[in-house]
Amino acid sequence: MNIVADENIPALQALLGSLGTVRTLPGRSMTAADLADTDVLLVRSITRVDRALLEGTPVRFVGTATIGMDHVDQAYLREQSIAFSSAPGCNADAVVEYVLTVLYSLAAEQGFVLRDKTVGIIGVGNVGSRLQRRLQRLGINLLLNDPPRAAEGGESFVSLDRLLDEADILCLHTPLVTAGPHPTQHLLGAAQLKRLRAGAIVLNAGRGAAIDGAALLQVAGQRPDLTLVLDVWENEPGIDTALAPFVRLGSPHIAGYSLDGKIRGTYMLYQALCQHLGLPEAAPLQDYLPAASVPRVEAGPGLTPLELMRLLYDPYRDDRALRATLGLPQAQRGVAFDRLRKEYPVRREFDTLTVTGRLAPALAEELVALGFRVELS
Amino acid sequence: MNIVADENIPALQALLGSLGTVRTLPGRSMTAADLADTDVLLVRSITRVDRALLEGTPVRFVGTATIGMDHVDQAYLREQSIAFSSAPGCNADAVVEYVLTVLYSLAAEQGFVLRDKTVGIIGVGNVGSRLQRRLQRLGINLLLNDPPRAAEGGESFVSLDRLLDEADILCLHTPLVTAGPHPTQHLLGAAQLKRLRAGAIVLNAGRGAAIDGAALLQVAGQRPDLTLVLDVWENEPGIDTALAPFVRLGSPHIAGYSLDGKIRGTYMLYQALCQHLGLPEAAPLQDYLPAASVPRVEAGPGLTPLELMRLLYDPYRDDRALRATLGLPQAQRGVAFDRLRKEYPVRREFDTLTVTGRLAPALAEELVALGFRVELS
Ligand SMILES: NC(=O)c1ccc[n+]([C@@H]2O[C@H](COP(=O)([O-])OP(=O)(O)OC[C@H]3O[C@@H](n4cnc5c(N)ncnc54)[C@H](O)[C@@H]3O)[C@@H](O)[C@H]2O)c1
Ligand SMILES: NC(=O)c1ccc[n+]([C@@H]2O[C@H](COP(=O)([O-])OP(=O)(O)OC[C@H]3O[C@@H](n4cnc5c(N)ncnc54)[C@H](O)[C@@H]3O)[C@@H](O)[C@H]2O)c1
Repeated sequence: MNIVADENIPALQALLGSLGTVRTLPGRSMTAADLADTDVLLVRSITRVDRALLEGTPVRFVGTATIGMDHVDQAYLREQSIAFSSAPGCNADAVVEYVLTVLYSLAAEQGFVLRDKTVGIIGVGNVGSRLQRRLQRLGINLLLNDPPRAAEGGESFVSLDRLLDEADILCLHTPLVTAGPHPTQHLLGAAQLKRLRAGAIVLNAGRGAAIDGAALLQVAGQRPDLTLVLDVWENEPGIDTALAPFVRLGSPHIAGYSLDGKIRGTYMLYQALCQHLGLPEAAPLQDYLPAASVPRVEAGPGLTPLELMRLLYDPYRDDRALRATLGLPQAQRGVAFDRLRKEYPVRREFDTLTVTGRLAPALAEELVALGFRVELS
Repeated sequence: MNIVADENIPALQALLGSLGTVRTLPGRSMTAADLADTDVLLVRSITRVDRALLEGTPVRFVGTATIGMDHVDQAYLREQSIAFSSAPGCNADAVVEYVLTVLYSLAAEQGFVLRDKTVGIIGVGNVGSRLQRRLQRLGINLLLNDPPRAAEGGESFVSLDRLLDEADILCLHTPLVTAGPHPTQHLLGAAQLKRLRAGAIVLNAGRGAAIDGAALLQVAGQRPDLTLVLDVWENEPGIDTALAPFVRLGSPHIAGYSLDGKIRGTYMLYQALCQHLGLPEAAPLQDYLPAASVPRVEAGPGLTPLELMRLLYDPYRDDRALRATLGLPQAQRGVAFDRLRKEYPVRREFDTLTVTGRLAPALAEELVALGFRVELS
């Protein structure tokens, strides 16, 4: 079996080498000619997958190692009975850990206790629902807003207005939806931003355009009480530098960029391909993840969860790196934004770290709720 | 035996409780009346120790838990045959670890390799010579400048001019000396700063006035190639906020503020007092240091020394905290500077962390050279 894959998909050989011959190509320049004897095509979001690419090729399975699928013409694939798979939620835990680290960092910096705050989650899908679960385990008061899911019933959701009125911390995890009954574009505009509680924290790690950038700039100037955290920006990669001084922590759309999440994306395609081929999966994901640079720490007295989080992820580093690009001429800024993403350093998820030693039960519980592994001694 | 001590000296009861009755007082307001039946007096730099404080009291031993001694009238103590002791070098290792963490952080940020650089140490006393030793063990090319020590012979020292010409990284660890053959006040003025190599890093953790602040402001504006790191500032605590934008990493005179260094200061007085009393020391310093919050980590593949350093010390955090005070009205800024020092969070020294696991020999050597404990498995 011949597999062609985008050269930037990680762990290809390890995961797919046993299923066939893997050839890697730059994703941006793939053509039908490249796929003349290809059975399986694996892409990232930069490859447009449609009739032009696939017609006349023997491709029977297309996988995208991404959560988005806008670059794939699914109607065409269905019509041609070409199997299709994506990797929904593959990096959702990474986003959740980004959020948790940011919130614990702000709590330390601003001197508040997370448990005293009400967190509102806007968009409770793969990312939002995982954030919900971890925050619930931490005993934090939550408000959920997700009109599409609310329409289906189930969880108890609240209106956006109620969330704006009652949440101290707002986490946006919506996709970009520009039409239909529940658009997300400019979901937070001037009216919503003005309505925010005094001292509110607004964190967006969904899509930039969920917040109206112009309105944000205006309201941020009037409301120094707000704390803004932006991982995603309107008009990426050419972000509005005027916003930067008002943003407490900014980053270049990397909330989901854990190594684990990236490899999990490939693994999900591998699983789907095994199923497509009627083969059993050879090994669990765990076997394909490299060991962490710090797999294990012993806890001593006074250990705080933030110390452990910071060992795995430092949001301030990302903020500094992004800010360092803002002085560049406009034309270079977008390139620099993309480069920060492309050359993002290795980041591991919380469950790669095992905490041992004598831990107070409350701390052990908190660490487990956060997602660390704990071995009590 | 009656001991009176400044209330802010740490670990007093643990270290001195067995030698006598320890009474603690605020250091700023001690008077002779407080010492009417006191045998041993232990102070910090805020208590002026002279005839006015001691005359008519039974005090026979004075200790200052500091490396500076300007606040003690030593001539008077000698005249009265009162024993005196200070704590030279007690926090020198903390300063060295601050410097190492800063240099490794800048290397990561700017993409250079420390071993390719020549480090010049200006002032090779307790701090400078310990820095020298660790850098030598790391195999880094060094230039040493210390005219008073050069006059005594021994080590091979170079002139300040040669160091300015050849060092890529300059570390200042001189005391403030305003008169005599080798003054340090404004040791680096406009001429010296202009002479610095292209891309030089200048780090001052000695005394602020060793660099002429006005000249620094002027030269920094002309030379964006320079990287400035200031832990000490001219005119502390009322520092020149105009300098801040040119300072890559600033901190409020806390390079030496490890918990270990603070307790070592008390321990050195305890040792001196034992000797004065003809008593053996009860236990090594180690026994008085609390366990670290992370006493032990296991190394996995790809571990970097900086990951471990950052677990113990984050210079960017200090920089952020200092910068957050710069917007305050002038009158409050100095107070905020002092508060950052007074409320400094617990920081531990590198040797409180044991690294276990399978380490490449070169990494193990580097970690040992840096001061970590390594247990190979
Ligand atoms: N920052 C990053 O690095 C990063 C990483 C992963 C995902 N994301 C982005 O985060 C977003 C969410 O990802 P996901 O995997 O959870 O997607 P998802 O599709 O699983 O969930 C999105 C949720 O948003 C809800 N939603 C839709 N319209 C809404 C509206 N008007 N108001 C409130 N909720 C609404 C949906 O009902 C759904 O439950 C996506 O846009 C994705 O691109 C960003
Ligand atoms: N930033 C901090 O938190 C922190 C902590 C500890 C010490 N310090 C300061 O660092 C300085 C050094 O501390 P130390 O304990 O090493 O002092 P030290 O007295 O042991 O050493 C100072 C050295 O500077 C040398 N020196 C004097 N004049 C010089 C000159 N003109 N040029 C070059 N060298 C000269 C001396 O000969 C001596 O070797 C002191 O000012 C101390 O206050 C700062």
